[in-house]
Amino acid sequence: MALHIRKSMKSLFRFNQKNTVIRRLFSAETCTELKGPSSGRVFSGIQPTGVPHLGNYLGALESWVAMQGQYSSVLYSIVDLHSITQAQDPQLLRHSILDMAASLLACGIDPNRSILFQQSQVSEHAELSWILGCLTSMPRLRHLPQWKMKSKQKNEGSVGLYTYPVLQAADILLYKSTHVPVGEDQVQHLELAQDLARIFNNQYGEFFPEPRALLSTTRKVKSLRDPSSKMSKSDPQKLATVFLTDTPEDIAFKIRRAVTDFTSEVTFDPEGRPGVSNLVSVHAAVSGQSVEEVVRLARGLDTGQYKTLVAEAVVQKLEPIRLEIQRLRADRGHLESLLTQGAERARALAAPVLREVRQRVGFS
Amino acid sequence: MALHIRKSMKSLFRFNQKNTVIRRLFSAETCTELKGPSSGRVFSGIQPTGVPHLGNYLGALESWVAMQGQYSSVLYSIVDLHSITQAQDPQLLRHSILDMAASLLACGIDPNRSILFQQSQVSEHAELSWILGCLTSMPRLRHLPQWKMKSKQKNEGSVGLYTYPVLQAADILLYKSTHVPVGEDQVQHLELAQDLARIFNNQYGEFFPEPRALLSTTRKVKSLRDPSSKMSKSDPQKLATVFLTDTPEDIAFKIRRAVTDFTSEVTFDPEGRPGVSNLVSVHAAVSGQSVEEVVRLARGLDTGQYKTLVAEAVVQKLEPIRLEIQRLRADRGHLESLLTQGAERARALAAPVLREVRQRVGFS
Repeated sequence: MALHIRKSMKSLFRFNQKNTVIRRLFSAETCTELKGPSSGRVFSGIQPTGVPHLGNYLGALESWVAMQGQYSSVLYSIVDLHSITQAQDPQLLRHSILDMAASLLACGIDPNRSILFQQSQVSEHAELSWILGCLTSMPRLRHLPQWKMKSKQKNEGSVGLYTYPVLQAADILLYKSTHVPVGEDQVQHLELAQDLARIFNNQYGEFFPEPRALLSTTRKVKSLRDPSSKMSKSDPQKLATVFLTDTPEDIAFKIRRAVTDFTSEVTFDPEGRPGVSNLVSVHAAVSGQSVEEVVRLARGLDTGQYKTLVAEAVVQKLEPIRLEIQRLRADRGHLESLLTQGAERARALAAPVLREVRQRVGFS
Repeated sequence: MALHIRKSMKSLFRFNQKNTVIRRLFSAETCTELKGPSSGRVFSGIQPTGVPHLGNYLGALESWVAMQGQYSSVLYSIVDLHSITQAQDPQLLRHSILDMAASLLACGIDPNRSILFQQSQVSEHAELSWILGCLTSMPRLRHLPQWKMKSKQKNEGSVGLYTYPVLQAADILLYKSTHVPVGEDQVQHLELAQDLARIFNNQYGEFFPEPRALLSTTRKVKSLRDPSSKMSKSDPQKLATVFLTDTPEDIAFKIRRAVTDFTSEVTFDPEGRPGVSNLVSVHAAVSGQSVEEVVRLARGLDTGQYKTLVAEAVVQKLEPIRLEIQRLRADRGHLESLLTQGAERARALAAPVLREVRQRVGFS
């Protein structure tokens, strides 16, 4: 596999069949030619919000699956310590952790090619976070997105919410990760991790690599009820979001009711016609075709007819995932044991790093 | 041993020979009659600032030693995670941790009657701290002493400095401690631990006892050079502070040079004559006599002659401690192994508590 990776992000964004995901992932990289898996280490985390939706899948998880073939070491963490920065129902959280594990596995995260684990099972995350917090100035966190967005709703928020990006930095640095797939909204948080790597290295000698962003700016799936906003798990409109566990009937119904406009022709014009363009994007993504190919296929169909086509393509992509989630969910013990094994493997990487950090800081 | 413990703190403060320490410790308790060791659990922490001084010894450590006979379970932690909330030299910190361990042992902390351990060796402290931080609102910490005092000097301070009291609460609650010896300056921090116990219990069901303060308001040893301020390790005036490792000659010299006033008679009048009164207090404390007895002994002596008496009493108390510190310091391996054993015993208590917390929060 030879990849041409270029610096400009926008020029790279083309929905062609084979390289979409890969190109997108490398978009923040500089121009290099890679052969075979890169020697870097990828870390990413996902909150245990239960079963992911189509937007999560196309926007991130599909790339996560692809990265398993592209990097020699890949870690994915279900970040439950992060999730409690907002109030959680314990019973629900417990289920959501296992549901997320089942979903990731069903999407193609393969414990033989990556380390999938639950953050709170590896104590080193909290420990490194404390140490990094002592290297972070208070004002540094004040303008980061997690605080600005969430503290307003919650009237000043918790200490956990404020210090969340420090824990995120610890998550990344604990494995000496070199690459971190992030959405645009997380870029400033990754910058903190980079800063903290530098600050630590300056103070205690070269140790942490500065992790690089793997930006995923494309494939933002929109709400089916309001194509001006992102598809979201917490959308109060039940028909707005397609979940990975939706049955074919659910999916067909939601897509049939998707908001479009009064023009019956199918075109791709995200600004002028966000509704139908969202369907085109989804269609292209799930079928592995380019937008142009998809629009060509839709020629002669009105949007009503086209929706049937889109629904079929989405079902074809998601149905095997749904069935696999169902199968995995039925065996809670198996999921728990997979997570335990993942935590052991994560700890095997984290422990020597923390040991060295402790030594350099003067604890031992 | 039968102790009468009363509510009022001031009425209890009497320097009689036997019960001074004990009465002082129970001062924040309500009126009860105790026979034999109480079933409570005591936790306290001390920063690894190297060798303690006479003020630390008389103000806290002597009580720590006494508590070993008064409570069925006693934990003392060298809180290195707290110490890095301010910049530390790693080499110095490493030594200071062992020096503090040696000093505590030399003062009479007995690993057979208490658990002495290094905080950072028990990962559960940082883990519980993260969880409690998610239950602490940001404004709750803004007016606590550690931040108000230290952040001014350091221009906004670190996240670690700000969240320090949350880690302190975790230190205490992790062992379901019932009693915490604190100085007056730490009362607000203990209140946070009490609040967090309540908040956790409200949210997740009764679990943590609300820890009570064992106030030690007495025996504030003053600087020998400026009796209006406390004796302090960081006093720039080298003669102001008596360290536990000072030789008899050092001690005699420092006390001979202690600031008094122009009256030669020895009296106890902390307001009007702080210098000589400080010496009287120290003399009473190290010799286990009451202030009245000490003043009676000094009748007919001028302050110069009296200083010799005080120096002798201080040397008599500290010389065995100094020699024991010296002996312990010489065997670094022994100290490290004692701390490792202490950490194992602490972890044996902490692990089931954190396991239950994780379960209640929904992590498992």
